[in-house]
Amino acid sequence: MAESLTPYCPYYHRAVAIITRRWTPEIVRALMSGTKRFGAIKSIIPGLSDRLLSERLKDLEAEGLVTRSVTPETPVLIEYCLTEKGMALCSVVKELATWAETWLTPEPAEADM
Amino acid sequence: MAESLTPYCPYYHRAVAIITRRWTPEIVRALMSGTKRFGAIKSIIPGLSDRLLSERLKDLEAEGLVTRSVTPETPVLIEYCLTEKGMALCSVVKELATWAETWLTPEPAEADM
Repeated sequence: MAESLTPYCPYYHRAVAIITRRWTPEIVRALMSGTKRFGAIKSIIPGLSDRLLSERLKDLEAEGLVTRSVTPETPVLIEYCLTEKGMALCSVVKELATWAETWLTPEPAEADM
Repeated sequence: MAESLTPYCPYYHRAVAIITRRWTPEIVRALMSGTKRFGAIKSIIPGLSDRLLSERLKDLEAEGLVTRSVTPETPVLIEYCLTEKGMALCSVVKELATWAETWLTPEPAEADM
């Protein structure tokens, strides 16, 4: 598996630059379950400020990973969802989630074994 | 696929903190092809300074992702390789590499089509 990748790739380096911006992997994960309003995304991710969420959503829109839709109701309904390019990151999110569950969860206590 | 993940997970958040440190995904990729000396890693990744590579390798050792081995020859041979926990990140690297190749490579020019 590992052998099939070159040790370096400029497109990978660019992908890393996009995905490693603070809160980006958390926002992509939060949007995997569907379209959400700003407040809903914020309530899912502890510690994420309004300012940073707003900034990051603008970055994600600019990168073509997120679409912002505006429905002219009263009050105006603004929602965010992943584009096809953004949804394609789900496999990365899933692999990282699996790694985290395998390697970062606490060992079961001896009493439970 | 997307439905199976909760919108937020504290272990995922911790994994993100580890993996998004600057140059970390590039260093893990560089080590996927096997044990390497400091200079070899540095020569693979354009733009990575001695200081940052040294700092990041120490972080990766502290997280249990990389092992530093010292062979007492003259001169001393110091090498770095991924631990089992570090190798387990290969699937994340591979998915991100695939995403990058699919979504970030330039469109073929019309003349080539």
